[in-house]
Amino acid sequence: MKLGSLKEGGRDGTLIVVSRDLKRAVKATGIASTLQAALDDWSNAAPRLNALSDALNEGRAENAFALEMAALASPLPRAYEFVDGSAYLPHVARVRRARGAEVPESFYTDPLMYQATSSGFYGPRDPILAISEEWGIDLEAEVIVVTDDVPMGVTAAEAGRHIQLVGLVNDVSLRNLIPNELAKGFGFLQSKPRSALSPVLATPDELGAAWRDNKLHLPMRTSINGAWFGEAEAGVDMQFSFAELVAHAAKTRPLAAGTIVGSGTIANEDTSKGASCLAEQRTVETLRDGKPSTPFLKFGDRVRIEITDAAGASLFGAIEQTVTRYEPRR
Amino acid sequence: MKLGSLKEGGRDGTLIVVSRDLKRAVKATGIASTLQAALDDWSNAAPRLNALSDALNEGRAENAFALEMAALASPLPRAYEFVDGSAYLPHVARVRRARGAEVPESFYTDPLMYQATSSGFYGPRDPILAISEEWGIDLEAEVIVVTDDVPMGVTAAEAGRHIQLVGLVNDVSLRNLIPNELAKGFGFLQSKPRSALSPVLATPDELGAAWRDNKLHLPMRTSINGAWFGEAEAGVDMQFSFAELVAHAAKTRPLAAGTIVGSGTIANEDTSKGASCLAEQRTVETLRDGKPSTPFLKFGDRVRIEITDAAGASLFGAIEQTVTRYEPRR
Repeated sequence: MKLGSLKEGGRDGTLIVVSRDLKRAVKATGIASTLQAALDDWSNAAPRLNALSDALNEGRAENAFALEMAALASPLPRAYEFVDGSAYLPHVARVRRARGAEVPESFYTDPLMYQATSSGFYGPRDPILAISEEWGIDLEAEVIVVTDDVPMGVTAAEAGRHIQLVGLVNDVSLRNLIPNELAKGFGFLQSKPRSALSPVLATPDELGAAWRDNKLHLPMRTSINGAWFGEAEAGVDMQFSFAELVAHAAKTRPLAAGTIVGSGTIANEDTSKGASCLAEQRTVETLRDGKPSTPFLKFGDRVRIEITDAAGASLFGAIEQTVTRYEPRR
Repeated sequence: MKLGSLKEGGRDGTLIVVSRDLKRAVKATGIASTLQAALDDWSNAAPRLNALSDALNEGRAENAFALEMAALASPLPRAYEFVDGSAYLPHVARVRRARGAEVPESFYTDPLMYQATSSGFYGPRDPILAISEEWGIDLEAEVIVVTDDVPMGVTAAEAGRHIQLVGLVNDVSLRNLIPNELAKGFGFLQSKPRSALSPVLATPDELGAAWRDNKLHLPMRTSINGAWFGEAEAGVDMQFSFAELVAHAAKTRPLAAGTIVGSGTIANEDTSKGASCLAEQRTVETLRDGKPSTPFLKFGDRVRIEITDAAGASLFGAIEQTVTRYEPRR
């Protein structure tokens, strides 16, 4: 099944079940008012949501309505935890090569992962708000999973069964703020502002053969201002599966229901696939030309991120955002 | 007023108003069922909670009951955001001196802060669960504040008015996991597991003259296994006020209602005040003796953290936790 949230009903929106073709939806009234509430009681809620999804896809759901993407909040408008990996090592290797550094051997066995902000996600058509272009605004197209309750110390072999939903994120990064923050040694904070999730999240069974080995084996199509930017294969060069990423995050603590685990920006060895973030593209240019030529995002720039199945059908809907100036009220 | 949450009613507990002397409490029934719900609608909920607090303190609240600390969940059993500063530079300076490094000048103007996990907080009397003592289990006694909605780009001058609640945190750290994580460059993840907040949080006005300049001017009393460990002055050597920490966190994004902002482990230039974390104590020993002599926490060790007012009354109740082995279910 596919789940989303309407921009109504409060800070957590209103949970809806969405049809496979993303054209119709129905409120999950009487099952769970929000996606977080469903995840908090997943073993009870999921079978009932699945039954409603079947009814919707078979055209027999009462009170179904035509889905408007602009009416959607983020499926989880706010979440209690977002941990983001960096599982595509071609990206890591390329960035390091550009500054003359090697990838440590340990990076192939010990995932890179950081604690990200989860207190607010943009809706899939909301603007990316920033006060200054000088921040070096960048997209990052990633796959994410959402877990139910994961016990501390879960093994990678056990972790896969805690993955309940799959989707996309535009993990917005402020590149020009990163060097100073990382030099301080405490990781990202100001350099990783709010992000946007895809219009809907899907259960792994909805993805068919494209979901196997706890990875999504499809290309991530990214465009900027309508121009092709990349279609990196999400199932290729992913050093750690989502099960391994979940186990890494849960090594010393449980993960609460509704935890979002990200893959990191998708990048392949094969540079003909394009990039999933501007930093990647600029690194390829630096290695080739000695300097980057593609600028970071400017106010008015439009970003589109989508994954379609082999038949061309959108799996999660498209993230479509415009970078927009935010004026602080003074 | 003082607010807490009972371990009943679901994952977010049940909001209670607690008397000034921490002896009596009353459910906030009809106002807000959880503290998060109150914070989500603070301008409406706060005056009504204040009126209930007045009734409780004057002995005229209906259905008031004797407060049992063991019945308390964390005031926020889960939260959407926890950002933790490192505002006491004597700690930073000492740790760096022990490894022969200087404190960069920028550390005096640009706060150190990291994104922390907020998806679950221990109740104030819950055990600290860990799978292995080899992780190097440490306490960190800190002051925290909780905000309402803070707009992106708020100035430090404006940020103070968004501080609605004040309390304590035992920010548990796994010291032996830190060097590897920080070497990877993405900050803390496995090395910062779940923490515990104080039994209650208090509004700034409840703290009287001890709350001024957006700092709490009282000593933080810490003991381990019943023995005095420290009483560092929270109002001394705090390089950045909570208003400045809130503004730092909100530079590139809004902070959602219920965001927790931490001070970092409290440390004074004056080492006679003791320490607020074992890493600090071990650093003092290393500078004095060439090596640390105090071990990290072992299973069965008891930690107590409390702030009392000038008259000896506990402001937020005591955090009292025992380090306990967690056996993963396999």
